[in-house]
Amino acid sequence: MQEFLEKVKSASRELSTMDAKRKNILLNKMANAIELNAEDIILKNKIDYTYAKENNIDNAMLDRLLLDKKRIKAMADSLRQIATLTDPVGKILDGWVNEDGLQISKISVPIGVIGIIYESRPNVTSDAAALCFKSGNGCVLKGGKEAQESNTIIASIMQGVLEENGVEKSAISLLPDSSREGVAKLIKEDKYVDLIIPRGGSGLIRYVNDNATVPVIKHDKGLCHTYVDAEANIEKAIKIALNAKVQRPGVCNSMETLLVDYSIADDVLPKFKIAFDAAQTKLKGCDITSEIIEVKDRAGDEEFNTEYLANILNIKVVNGVHEAINHISQYGSGHSEAIITENYTTAQRFLNEVDAATVYVNASTRFTDGGAFGFGAEVGISTNKLHARGPMGISELTTYKFIIRGDGHIRQ
Amino acid sequence: MQEFLEKVKSASRELSTMDAKRKNILLNKMANAIELNAEDIILKNKIDYTYAKENNIDNAMLDRLLLDKKRIKAMADSLRQIATLTDPVGKILDGWVNEDGLQISKISVPIGVIGIIYESRPNVTSDAAALCFKSGNGCVLKGGKEAQESNTIIASIMQGVLEENGVEKSAISLLPDSSREGVAKLIKEDKYVDLIIPRGGSGLIRYVNDNATVPVIKHDKGLCHTYVDAEANIEKAIKIALNAKVQRPGVCNSMETLLVDYSIADDVLPKFKIAFDAAQTKLKGCDITSEIIEVKDRAGDEEFNTEYLANILNIKVVNGVHEAINHISQYGSGHSEAIITENYTTAQRFLNEVDAATVYVNASTRFTDGGAFGFGAEVGISTNKLHARGPMGISELTTYKFIIRGDGHIRQ
Repeated sequence: MQEFLEKVKSASRELSTMDAKRKNILLNKMANAIELNAEDIILKNKIDYTYAKENNIDNAMLDRLLLDKKRIKAMADSLRQIATLTDPVGKILDGWVNEDGLQISKISVPIGVIGIIYESRPNVTSDAAALCFKSGNGCVLKGGKEAQESNTIIASIMQGVLEENGVEKSAISLLPDSSREGVAKLIKEDKYVDLIIPRGGSGLIRYVNDNATVPVIKHDKGLCHTYVDAEANIEKAIKIALNAKVQRPGVCNSMETLLVDYSIADDVLPKFKIAFDAAQTKLKGCDITSEIIEVKDRAGDEEFNTEYLANILNIKVVNGVHEAINHISQYGSGHSEAIITENYTTAQRFLNEVDAATVYVNASTRFTDGGAFGFGAEVGISTNKLHARGPMGISELTTYKFIIRGDGHIRQ
Repeated sequence: MQEFLEKVKSASRELSTMDAKRKNILLNKMANAIELNAEDIILKNKIDYTYAKENNIDNAMLDRLLLDKKRIKAMADSLRQIATLTDPVGKILDGWVNEDGLQISKISVPIGVIGIIYESRPNVTSDAAALCFKSGNGCVLKGGKEAQESNTIIASIMQGVLEENGVEKSAISLLPDSSREGVAKLIKEDKYVDLIIPRGGSGLIRYVNDNATVPVIKHDKGLCHTYVDAEANIEKAIKIALNAKVQRPGVCNSMETLLVDYSIADDVLPKFKIAFDAAQTKLKGCDITSEIIEVKDRAGDEEFNTEYLANILNIKVVNGVHEAINHISQYGSGHSEAIITENYTTAQRFLNEVDAATVYVNASTRFTDGGAFGFGAEVGISTNKLHARGPMGISELTTYKFIIRGDGHIRQ
């Protein structure tokens, strides 16, 4: 493991000073190589697919696993798009002359070696490798077992391009030992690895966070709320709540619990029910809710703590913005929270007091991602508070250093 | 422990939206209260001091522990100075309108609850509490056992001011169980604690880093180098190297190893020897060095890996800037590194390729601290790469959130 990681580290040093033009040319070459080798990729992907099917993996996962010509083209295009992004390295973030006359500049630099642990989709392999490459970082990728053959060929095609162009191919590496033990070792190699990004189920993320000595940026669950204030425009509220729940229920920025102010509950809950019934949403309600409308189940502590990732919604009646904020503070995962209101002061209070990566007024929580933010490419959505919070673009794959120019300066 | 931390968390929520004027008034009141209670502090400090003396604690540590009227005045003045700093909360860091017309602002917010684990000096208690308070964070402080009585009275005086002014006093808390087990529990409470900052010996830092599930920003060792290039101005080189080693050898930004280019070694090493002999520096040299000048010991792998924190210096002769950078990459702790050269291209190469928090040309590494950087107050010097790197001011005790204003926006 250490021998392997030393190579990645060494490759990352080469990458850290590579100019943007060269990185972009190589990314485009990788894109071409992926398209050129589409048939080989499809062959290897069939092995994964057949094995997965024999092992009764569910249809949604099977679909995510499958690669065809169109999806491979999309993978290549994603690399080409990453090549067009502004280079995040070498940006002067701040600069000043100190009291002694030293010229201090704070500039963005690559982090070093980044380990990314993810599941199933093989296109994450090319995307993650390209995002790390573009930001000047070496990467160690550990994909899902079920996509092993696909991931291996994708990575080796990208490595081939590096090799042909005289770049250390270890800059893009798959973790050689992809067992649980391999992961356990990787996350403790803080001498070589500078950052671990786990993306996947909460079990994986908890395991990595609890055992890593390498810093971790989690892409953890999204337990998101929408609070409909007494002074909400109800048309907007219904449209936004529906979008937040049903437009794509299986993602982290979808809503799990709708909070409705007590003073309007009698009036608006029946309207919400019509909208959500039409969308075949399974409703669970608190005691007061279930007195006003018919719900499938009661919602209590357990439900309020559940990220459904499905077309299921908790509804809770609360007594004003204060109780809404308290509920969010207790159950929210700090991902995305929204208030629907026409009242300026209530909106301001919600924006100021809710502690989450993204806080919305009169908009759907579904907007929390790198694409919607205009980052061009998304590394993921961080549920950490440190270093990167919320949608992460390639800038968040850099750190900084201070460059200091003197002329014989000594400390008095 | 959880009950205690829940109180700190709740207090931190109150603090997070407190306006700057109020925070500054409270900091000044705390400063006054500390001065007013100087005699009580001195009494409690005597208990610590006597106990420490009976337990044969060394003189340097005894001196750091001791509080007198002058030092207590300095503690109070430090709080007053922190009150004058620009508030780091609520700064708009970035902002734009996305393609959908959503108004996105990225604003600085407090991190939440910060745990600080430190040793001996009781003034760190008031400083750390004030820095966290100013940046809107609740804090849990764990000082050294030998300063227990002093830390307790200082914290309780500050808490008294909070209480008198109707602020939850848990915003400034000492860890109630200050045993090793208490620390072990604290660093795993990631539900309540958002950041742990360990300051102290490398054993403590390693222990915290390896066992914490809360994110850690380390203030670890400084193994700093100064490289004297073939084209160095030797007068500057001697002045800077001497300053980097002897001006204050016991701190993390002092130099441990001097690297000298092969082509000038015969000429300059005798000059360095005269300078360092006059400063009573104990010299250890590589094989080539010891052929040119007389040194006390040989320097090899073990010496190059040692942070002396004493007036001891390794000297190594290297073959050009490339070997200097390689040596630094192998042995440096990523803290502060310097090159002495008049050659523009060599300086640029060193600045670009050396991976450290601060990289200097023609200046002493001793400048790496918040004071010299002009931060006004220093939280510490981070040896992490993520979130904060190098000198940390109060801005580094904030994170950010995205505030998003819409008008019925839904995701298509």
